[in-house]
Amino acid sequence: MTERLVLGADIGGTAVKYVVGGAEDPDRFAGEVRTDTGDVRETFDRLAAAVVDRLPSGAGLAAAGLACAGIVDPIRGTLGRAPNLPGWENRDLAAALREAFGDILGIFANDVNAALAGEARFGAGRGCRDLVMLALGTGVGGAVMVDGRLVTGVHHGAGEIGHMVLDQDGPLCGCGNRGCVEAYAGSYGLLAEARRLAVDPGSGAALSDLVAARGEALSTRDLSDLAAAGDADAAALFARTGHMLGLAVGNLLNLLDPDKIIIGGGVAQAGDLLLAPCRETAASTVLCVASRATPIEPAELGPLAAALGASRLARDGLEAA
Amino acid sequence: MTERLVLGADIGGTAVKYVVGGAEDPDRFAGEVRTDTGDVRETFDRLAAAVVDRLPSGAGLAAAGLACAGIVDPIRGTLGRAPNLPGWENRDLAAALREAFGDILGIFANDVNAALAGEARFGAGRGCRDLVMLALGTGVGGAVMVDGRLVTGVHHGAGEIGHMVLDQDGPLCGCGNRGCVEAYAGSYGLLAEARRLAVDPGSGAALSDLVAARGEALSTRDLSDLAAAGDADAAALFARTGHMLGLAVGNLLNLLDPDKIIIGGGVAQAGDLLLAPCRETAASTVLCVASRATPIEPAELGPLAAALGASRLARDGLEAA
Repeated sequence: MTERLVLGADIGGTAVKYVVGGAEDPDRFAGEVRTDTGDVRETFDRLAAAVVDRLPSGAGLAAAGLACAGIVDPIRGTLGRAPNLPGWENRDLAAALREAFGDILGIFANDVNAALAGEARFGAGRGCRDLVMLALGTGVGGAVMVDGRLVTGVHHGAGEIGHMVLDQDGPLCGCGNRGCVEAYAGSYGLLAEARRLAVDPGSGAALSDLVAARGEALSTRDLSDLAAAGDADAAALFARTGHMLGLAVGNLLNLLDPDKIIIGGGVAQAGDLLLAPCRETAASTVLCVASRATPIEPAELGPLAAALGASRLARDGLEAA
Repeated sequence: MTERLVLGADIGGTAVKYVVGGAEDPDRFAGEVRTDTGDVRETFDRLAAAVVDRLPSGAGLAAAGLACAGIVDPIRGTLGRAPNLPGWENRDLAAALREAFGDILGIFANDVNAALAGEARFGAGRGCRDLVMLALGTGVGGAVMVDGRLVTGVHHGAGEIGHMVLDQDGPLCGCGNRGCVEAYAGSYGLLAEARRLAVDPGSGAALSDLVAARGEALSTRDLSDLAAAGDADAAALFARTGHMLGLAVGNLLNLLDPDKIIIGGGVAQAGDLLLAPCRETAASTVLCVASRATPIEPAELGPLAAALGASRLARDGLEAA
């Protein structure tokens, strides 16, 4: 083969998003295949079929980076606890990759770690060596980079920023504790708080009407639209959520003093409704005066962040080999 | 000179503790000189006079590691904010070292960072690459090591674990915020809580009597002695403090998943009165099942930890040069 291309894939509960490309254009082409949550091999075969057909003539795959939501052992290439991929738990991703793609270099990462690697190389973290990322989805994922390297932890358990306890008497979290970051700033926590507010006698009609009308389909986008339209209850909801997020960010600044904090995920699309109060609280929480001005910025790469980051990690592995 | 020795010094508000030695015996001799909090040069001259007189014939100082409480710029060798050394703020430690000791290699570090470097090499963290330390003194200092290197932060502001907010409605902290780790687990916070409990009608006579008898001289040792003697109020005070410390430790495990958490400082001498509830809460806070068994252990080096660690950092600098 004349050109060594790299695959980056983000394996989610419903789809595998992928990018394939070179060092300068990691997403020369992109696509997705459906995830079979019960069958690792079938999913990898689908991915291989989709990717190999589209390789330009004269080019071949030299490495693949795979990102998964869950506890990923980046050395052995195995998946541990993975609530979104029930049939994949404790499976050997490295072996599945070899069976589907042959003998190429495989690199494995947790999806938020991969997303941070992507933002660091191609997105909001360009030029930075020390970064912390929070991904505000249904829950809240996190990732930490120190001196250009992801901190994965001795048991691959690092980066669980979503379970930092902010108030032990706060709202119940899915993990069983109370007052975790994700019980406020994950969409699950934010929607639960909106529903509580909607039946609070002190709230106005607009929020109650919205919550009643949307029912189970209520989204954080519905709520940010209402806040952007001037509704005080919805604005207060984001101000409160941003404040709690700011406590977490302040704690992170005090602990690691990074170049930048990157906030991604669907909930972050509320923008300054969330980030302005977050920045204010973080600045008042941090001790080191110089760190009060640390940028707290939205992620830039969108839904392909983890695939791009996985591709970057695989390219790094190739260059180091 | 035939032997290259290294000096490690821990510059506190009242005394400079120092060790001098070789690679295998960093504390071949040790001592202390009085700190002049208004005069950097005078203090360094005292240190040089004390050390140089005791050097064995044929040996010379090749490097010095200096640890200071405060914001230390480890690259330029300058001191920033330093509440315990009022006349030293914004002074150039590297220049003062050169004037007193001549042209030797100088390495500079925050005191808790130096203590962690010492524990990692000679104490509770031997054999570990990823460590977090909390030093429970009047306030609470912290330090983070990732992959064998101290994380000092972009603005030298990392490791401020004492100001992690655990309850924004909690007791007032010296920094102006509420519910910081040190407002519970620093001696200042612990003594304040003991004084509150002493006037609580629900408390027994033993604690009230102790607080009244000791007055301003009340120490955490007085309280741990009372708890160890079976007093329920004093035991509950340490259980509550250990619980809050455990929330902080759980948050750190979720974030960094290190090999070990090391707890040092005078308050930690309460031992399992504090560490048993700390371990219990930390284990119930952490998400990653494997991390629940991460050791949470007392520091081993005692009052010379920072001097030994500074010596280690200087020796590392010498070997890398």
